[in-house]
Amino acid sequence: MSHKKYPRVVIIGAGFAGLNAAKKLANQPFEVIIIDKTNHHLFQPLLYQVASAALSPGDIASPIRTILRGIPNVYVEMDEVVSIDKVNKIVILSEQENIEFDYLIVAPGTRHSYFSNPEWEQFAPGLKSLDDALKIREKVLLSFEKAEHLVGSNEANRHLTFVIVGGGPTGVEIAGSLAEIGSRTMLPDFPMLNKKDIKIYLVEATNRILSSFPESLSEKARQNLETLGVRVLLNARVANITENDVEISWEHHSEIIETTNVIWGAGNAASPLLKTLNSQLDKSGRAIVNSDCSLPNYPNIFVVGDAACFTNNNGDILPGVAQTAIQQGHYVASNISRKIQPENRKPFVYNDKGIMATIGRAKAIAQIGKLKFHGIIAWLLWAVIHVISLIGFRNQFRVMTEWIWYYFTFNPGARLIIRSKLKKDNPK
Amino acid sequence: MSHKKYPRVVIIGAGFAGLNAAKKLANQPFEVIIIDKTNHHLFQPLLYQVASAALSPGDIASPIRTILRGIPNVYVEMDEVVSIDKVNKIVILSEQENIEFDYLIVAPGTRHSYFSNPEWEQFAPGLKSLDDALKIREKVLLSFEKAEHLVGSNEANRHLTFVIVGGGPTGVEIAGSLAEIGSRTMLPDFPMLNKKDIKIYLVEATNRILSSFPESLSEKARQNLETLGVRVLLNARVANITENDVEISWEHHSEIIETTNVIWGAGNAASPLLKTLNSQLDKSGRAIVNSDCSLPNYPNIFVVGDAACFTNNNGDILPGVAQTAIQQGHYVASNISRKIQPENRKPFVYNDKGIMATIGRAKAIAQIGKLKFHGIIAWLLWAVIHVISLIGFRNQFRVMTEWIWYYFTFNPGARLIIRSKLKKDNPK
Repeated sequence: MSHKKYPRVVIIGAGFAGLNAAKKLANQPFEVIIIDKTNHHLFQPLLYQVASAALSPGDIASPIRTILRGIPNVYVEMDEVVSIDKVNKIVILSEQENIEFDYLIVAPGTRHSYFSNPEWEQFAPGLKSLDDALKIREKVLLSFEKAEHLVGSNEANRHLTFVIVGGGPTGVEIAGSLAEIGSRTMLPDFPMLNKKDIKIYLVEATNRILSSFPESLSEKARQNLETLGVRVLLNARVANITENDVEISWEHHSEIIETTNVIWGAGNAASPLLKTLNSQLDKSGRAIVNSDCSLPNYPNIFVVGDAACFTNNNGDILPGVAQTAIQQGHYVASNISRKIQPENRKPFVYNDKGIMATIGRAKAIAQIGKLKFHGIIAWLLWAVIHVISLIGFRNQFRVMTEWIWYYFTFNPGARLIIRSKLKKDNPK
Repeated sequence: MSHKKYPRVVIIGAGFAGLNAAKKLANQPFEVIIIDKTNHHLFQPLLYQVASAALSPGDIASPIRTILRGIPNVYVEMDEVVSIDKVNKIVILSEQENIEFDYLIVAPGTRHSYFSNPEWEQFAPGLKSLDDALKIREKVLLSFEKAEHLVGSNEANRHLTFVIVGGGPTGVEIAGSLAEIGSRTMLPDFPMLNKKDIKIYLVEATNRILSSFPESLSEKARQNLETLGVRVLLNARVANITENDVEISWEHHSEIIETTNVIWGAGNAASPLLKTLNSQLDKSGRAIVNSDCSLPNYPNIFVVGDAACFTNNNGDILPGVAQTAIQQGHYVASNISRKIQPENRKPFVYNDKGIMATIGRAKAIAQIGKLKFHGIIAWLLWAVIHVISLIGFRNQFRVMTEWIWYYFTFNPGARLIIRSKLKKDNPK
């Protein structure tokens, strides 16, 4: 990899942005090195289905090397980037030698943020990686096992109470799928438990869930959730989280919910790597970029996807969704490959293809341009678009057949506890 | 579960023996409690394919509760049995209250045994649980990542050298699938590595592999392995295992193989739980049982499957295979359900349906009665029988489609590193 014949493009992160940039630069006169700390590209929009045991990790992830296999000018490195030296044009890796670059595309994504309460993380896991999803899956499944033995006790109720923090798409999707799988899949397996024992709360700080959608669709989603048995708490903030309960506060009162299952779907913070750029960041830690996605004064360093704070020409900041990442990755790589001088680059223009969120089987909402959809039509649209967007025929086929199977049987296929053993609760 | 109206049958272990016993007792006038330390029944014959990234855990495992769902007299407990008090008829659990029994079926299976070298386990993981398989999968995949960076060095060769200990079916199947996936799947993803860099050794202490098969089939299997590039070392014993090498000794000489990848497929020891029976055990720790699978002097305590040492009427000890476990579980439950007095029980008779082992794609051997098969016919036979034997249409369908996909593409779908990060080797 040391024979430097062509200008070198280093890409940090093989998510939607990084992978699309690499593909765009395939077979171009550049040496491309794409670095990721895992060996796989993850289809993040379906990660919550791994957490709820509906899909297996292998259904929504593929090895990065295999996706980019056979492209002679693209190299894949599995390693963690520790820092970026923008002046000397060097990327510093955790385990391997530093890599120099001519162009740099920074696309490390986000992690969940607990704001000023990092101690909550141990009790309220978030959902960004396959490892996160498998941990949540095991915890949820184990909770039902524990509750079955303790049935009727306070402890049992605590294990069957789920609090999901954050009414954005992740929170809504987790709450909806837990409600559905809890009552339709788990209950028939646990003869001691009753539907009324399972309590699922979705906690949202503002006055409606899915605030990026029109109000009428937010309301539909809320109704769908309530139909599934989810209690949607609006204008509600999390004041504290411990091992056994959550304190929720409203403007004038507060309430303690006893639960051992809190899932964090609120608040993102961009990768800490961005701090090493020594450039201006927004309050979520995202790098503020120019209209060509480059860093101010560094025309050959680009920050894209969830890690970038990009302001549209109408003054809106672009949402942290897959489409933004895909389009920016493509746009930046296209400018690099055509060797357009910084002053001649046309500004990035976001093409809003619409937004959608799913609540449960045959329940979803979607907005495409001025059209609004809900119910089974939105859900079918959601399902088709997500299956098509998966990488590779194998994953498309497996996800589609799992969904068809689930649609008719309500028995998702990945309800396995692999790492954990049943342990008595810690004494209080 | 405390309303004891019917005699209680406790079953320890939900493997082939335990699960078949539970099914046989379904809807009979008994209270049946089946206890397993995991929440799933594992189809162990295909576990090596999870280790070699060919299948996902969810393809070969199903929740025990779901398999036995809706049977009113069968209860499932997830817990570990710590000991058995045969005199007072009590099973002592790790986390929950003790359970009394009228009948007991002990079917806890085996673990791998490192004989008198327990310190080898850390360097040479065995393959009994899904957790074991995922650990081996990550280690193997990570080895290729490490080798790619270190290419040409001694360390790189060490990471690409795999030593599988034990020439029984497990060892042969792992060696064959690693050889195939190594050269057909992994190499195209790692441009720095060459086929000659991958070295796979299968170490067998006797003079032939698969010694339960006729000699001619053993020889076919050995040839198949050599064709795939596996070096089969016969009459060879493992003298020592460290983090970075294995010492192999023959009668008159010995050799050091540098490797960071040793997989243990030799030697089983029955579950340590059997010691608490205070009954006679054989040298592998299995309980020696009567002709009705009961423990001497305890006609209502049965030990079945891999945990039992059962001597056939021709003096042979039955092999520790799925068929033995299935048939014994069924036989014992049938005697219980018909309330046959101990003195009237007909001895258990093993129905040998044949044996088979697979080496790779379109490579297998099989013996059914006096018929011997090898090559693609044996492999198709193997594939069909294994797909049919899986529990549930979903898993049958998923395994079958994965195999068809693999047959044509050589790209198995589960090559994910989820828990581990790339770390520099420890300094020597």
